[in-house]
Amino acid sequence: MKGESGVKVRKLAVLAAVLAALPVLGGGALQAAGRGPVEPGRIVLERQGAFAAGGTVLGDPAKSSLHCDHGYVEYQIPVKARKTALFMWHSSSALVWQQRWDGGEGFRDIFLKRGFATYLWDGPRVGRANWGCEEYTYKPGIGRDQGNFTAWRFGKTFGEWFPGVQFPKDDKRAYEQAMRARYEEFDIVKNVRLEAEAGAKAIDEVGPSVVLTNSAGGLRALLAATQSSNVKGIVAYENPGFPFPEGAGPDRPEGPFGPIRVTEEEFNRLTKIPLQFVWGDNIADSTTWPASLKQCEQFVELINQRGGNAKILKLTDVGLKGNTHIPFMDMNNRAVADQLSAFLKQNGLDRR
Amino acid sequence: MKGESGVKVRKLAVLAAVLAALPVLGGGALQAAGRGPVEPGRIVLERQGAFAAGGTVLGDPAKSSLHCDHGYVEYQIPVKARKTALFMWHSSSALVWQQRWDGGEGFRDIFLKRGFATYLWDGPRVGRANWGCEEYTYKPGIGRDQGNFTAWRFGKTFGEWFPGVQFPKDDKRAYEQAMRARYEEFDIVKNVRLEAEAGAKAIDEVGPSVVLTNSAGGLRALLAATQSSNVKGIVAYENPGFPFPEGAGPDRPEGPFGPIRVTEEEFNRLTKIPLQFVWGDNIADSTTWPASLKQCEQFVELINQRGGNAKILKLTDVGLKGNTHIPFMDMNNRAVADQLSAFLKQNGLDRR
Repeated sequence: MKGESGVKVRKLAVLAAVLAALPVLGGGALQAAGRGPVEPGRIVLERQGAFAAGGTVLGDPAKSSLHCDHGYVEYQIPVKARKTALFMWHSSSALVWQQRWDGGEGFRDIFLKRGFATYLWDGPRVGRANWGCEEYTYKPGIGRDQGNFTAWRFGKTFGEWFPGVQFPKDDKRAYEQAMRARYEEFDIVKNVRLEAEAGAKAIDEVGPSVVLTNSAGGLRALLAATQSSNVKGIVAYENPGFPFPEGAGPDRPEGPFGPIRVTEEEFNRLTKIPLQFVWGDNIADSTTWPASLKQCEQFVELINQRGGNAKILKLTDVGLKGNTHIPFMDMNNRAVADQLSAFLKQNGLDRR
Repeated sequence: MKGESGVKVRKLAVLAAVLAALPVLGGGALQAAGRGPVEPGRIVLERQGAFAAGGTVLGDPAKSSLHCDHGYVEYQIPVKARKTALFMWHSSSALVWQQRWDGGEGFRDIFLKRGFATYLWDGPRVGRANWGCEEYTYKPGIGRDQGNFTAWRFGKTFGEWFPGVQFPKDDKRAYEQAMRARYEEFDIVKNVRLEAEAGAKAIDEVGPSVVLTNSAGGLRALLAATQSSNVKGIVAYENPGFPFPEGAGPDRPEGPFGPIRVTEEEFNRLTKIPLQFVWGDNIADSTTWPASLKQCEQFVELINQRGGNAKILKLTDVGLKGNTHIPFMDMNNRAVADQLSAFLKQNGLDRR
């Protein structure tokens, strides 16, 4: 490991010894779940809680009504927090920010220890915000497990793990937990827009934030950034879809995985903040991801042509191998975190 | 205020002064949300995270499958935690454990500061566990806002607040947040049993736990206690439904708000742990709650006839007035917490 993690190896060894001496923290499988390596330090909270943001009201609130279509924000603010918060936008389950694949320390905890306030977001109709304003039908999709395996780039085809993949492939509990780290995400254009609008409102309540996204959360966050000046940057892990102004980008209809059409004015707002698009390993060996990376390059080029600050970070270019579609959950998530810390520092977004 | 809260008033005044001097923690409305009174001390975490528990697999996991019907557990373990954890089972939204009505400190935080590990539970199909094994249709219910108002005993009829109700009735944001603190709960008998079974498995992963419940969560937890010996006690806030053996309890078919039929053996397991049923104020003035309290009395009598330890705590009997259907969210939630601390101490469930 390099950078911040590297210099703290000795501290970590001391901490590991301390942890080993502690009494059991929970029973059974929880106790068995992975622990090392963990970020040094403790999480000391100034405040935590949750609130609803965005949404609408159906009916007459004085007579017969329903408050619905809000999102759900779960927040934790450490003592002496840095000025800019991290707003975490998943595309499968809030769990992705809460855990490493093996049950070890998640990205949220690493960044709480590094001094950032964190906000976990379930957009309208998603997860703890599933109190929507419209009827919908959920259907269980047999085969989604196998779809996850390839979409998340555990391997090229189901059951054939990529060599060196950053997933504990012999840990049956980790695999089961991964398959259960999902809930309905409502990937249709209308909901992308609905979630983006509520997300912008949530971020306006939070204040200055860098939005961290995974997969289809990235498109939603880019749209939210056109609506809230409190979005001070976006770091998008493996984002397949992008907004484009009319006449630019892929020549096909709008879709929940891009493109989404925005006005010139909206698009140009995205040139005012730093954007980083992070990609894991083994992309060339997957069926779908090369096209997404290509669309990403197209988007980045257009942003930069207009004076913006968008960059692509291929983790393999900085020596990180085997990362999946959810790199911040991977076994080397502290090294992935070091890359984020570097981005935040370079852009003045880690000030206290 | 009485008891633990009372003797800490001076400490609290000091803390309030310290808090007032701190920098802004978040932007806009979050900053404006209620803060005082808060429990003295800080939340210092040993560990936190989330995991799935229970569930099944549809299809062939080697070929085409779906992991589904698990529940979602979000846990926080403070340093030097007490031996018994608190497992929190909502019936509207996880938010009820995370906040006071005005956005002030929630029950979870109070008990983290008092040294308990806490586990927030979304049962199968609920909230962050809505990755079910069966198709279902959600329909928005216009009028639910007004239903909440009376069911949660903000007032006898919609818009007419009970005098002295422990809700900040002039705080428009608090009212809006309350109406949005809901998601689909799947109140049918089949799901009650499904959630209870997964809950028992979750608690077996956690280890020795006292289950705190609200409303229809109580019935689920009572069923879970017949399946897991790690349930060391239940404190049920305003529980409308109960399990009964054949031939006992209300003479009507099974329903999601009780009764649910259990075997004699299952029922007798409930006589082995302390059970407390907590009720708020203004019950006689509501349409539905007097019948629930009566069923509760019937259940408690039967448990105690069989040598069990079940008690009813009417908050008005200990001087607490104006409590709603969700007493632990009420403005006097620290006084409600003191009652829980007393129960835990009396039953040896607060040992370190």
